[in-house]
Amino acid sequence: MAGLSPDTLLDTLRWRYAVKVFDPARAIPADLWSALEESLVLSPSSYGLQPWKFLVVQDPELRAALRPASWNQAQITDCSHLVVLLRRRTITAADADRLVSVTAERRGIEPALLDGYRQMMQRDLVEGPRSHTIGTWAANQVYIALGNLMTCAALLGVDTCPIEGFSPPDYDRILQLEDTPFQTAVVCACGYRNETDKYASLAKVRYPATEVIEHR
Amino acid sequence: MAGLSPDTLLDTLRWRYAVKVFDPARAIPADLWSALEESLVLSPSSYGLQPWKFLVVQDPELRAALRPASWNQAQITDCSHLVVLLRRRTITAADADRLVSVTAERRGIEPALLDGYRQMMQRDLVEGPRSHTIGTWAANQVYIALGNLMTCAALLGVDTCPIEGFSPPDYDRILQLEDTPFQTAVVCACGYRNETDKYASLAKVRYPATEVIEHR
Repeated sequence: MAGLSPDTLLDTLRWRYAVKVFDPARAIPADLWSALEESLVLSPSSYGLQPWKFLVVQDPELRAALRPASWNQAQITDCSHLVVLLRRRTITAADADRLVSVTAERRGIEPALLDGYRQMMQRDLVEGPRSHTIGTWAANQVYIALGNLMTCAALLGVDTCPIEGFSPPDYDRILQLEDTPFQTAVVCACGYRNETDKYASLAKVRYPATEVIEHR
Repeated sequence: MAGLSPDTLLDTLRWRYAVKVFDPARAIPADLWSALEESLVLSPSSYGLQPWKFLVVQDPELRAALRPASWNQAQITDCSHLVVLLRRRTITAADADRLVSVTAERRGIEPALLDGYRQMMQRDLVEGPRSHTIGTWAANQVYIALGNLMTCAALLGVDTCPIEGFSPPDYDRILQLEDTPFQTAVVCACGYRNETDKYASLAKVRYPATEVIEHR
């Protein structure tokens, strides 16, 4: 793989911050947005199960309805592209079967060859101890996608603001998710920082590496 | 920000896969590993609270002890650098106070100016409804760091394998975390794929974008 230089990578991560004020007049170009959607699709997940769905909310009326359910944060209405990241409510035997079926087809093999894989998912997620906290497990996978999205966006020069400050039940109602296999996990506003956003120039605050990283 | 091209980004994400067989003879060069540690430190988190710690486990005896607690997966012992990602067990008023104090110092302002910020963390995470599921919240933040780490590694040409298949209580015991504010959340093996790893050349399996992404 053609590697990015470590310095460029770290400069990019330091450039990123959680945008408070987006420039509502500046839209993410179609080719960049298309790549960011593909980066969501390519996000890693446990077993490759992809227990998620990503809503890209562009309808101004829908955005206006979501804003009061988001502590009235302006990023909801002012960003270029608003992504609502959904997690699966549960994982069933049918979900494992479908992944096995799609995998076998994609790789040109018999599904029976993947039976061990199917059984691992079944024993771990559908019947095992993790089945009791499967919503938590699915949310964890969604947060991998969120981490990947924010980093990919920064690499394309696109700003983001991850948002946990919202009412999940209100989102589920407004987005009509109540009778679907999905529920709202987290939100990410994407776009470009406004010149007036004073948060852009504030020093990034991190605990020292000597505290956060420990070598054993 | 100097942007990476969308094609290069997507090529990198397609190159990434969950390594099954690492090359035990190939170590990540010090400058790249140092950048990856810094990328962990720079990971985004809610409120910037960084409710995590990252153990880099290089001691062969410790790796050997962790392997049977990890479904005996060879990646634990064969990878170049093994990262055990820890989450905070709880968030206290003292955690919010410390972040406010470090932020004020870093930005050269009076802590009192950040009192609204401190109160938001207090009301949301320390006393609010989220305090009842704070371990889940902390784990979510750790998974952002995991997503960021896997993407950053791929950009530097470094392979990874995220691992959920392990016993968290056994990890906490072996790593002597039981009387600390941290517990094991997830593991990420980092290094270089072995030429013999047949998984490297298998077609990546993703559900179609038309199913995973929905425009509203």
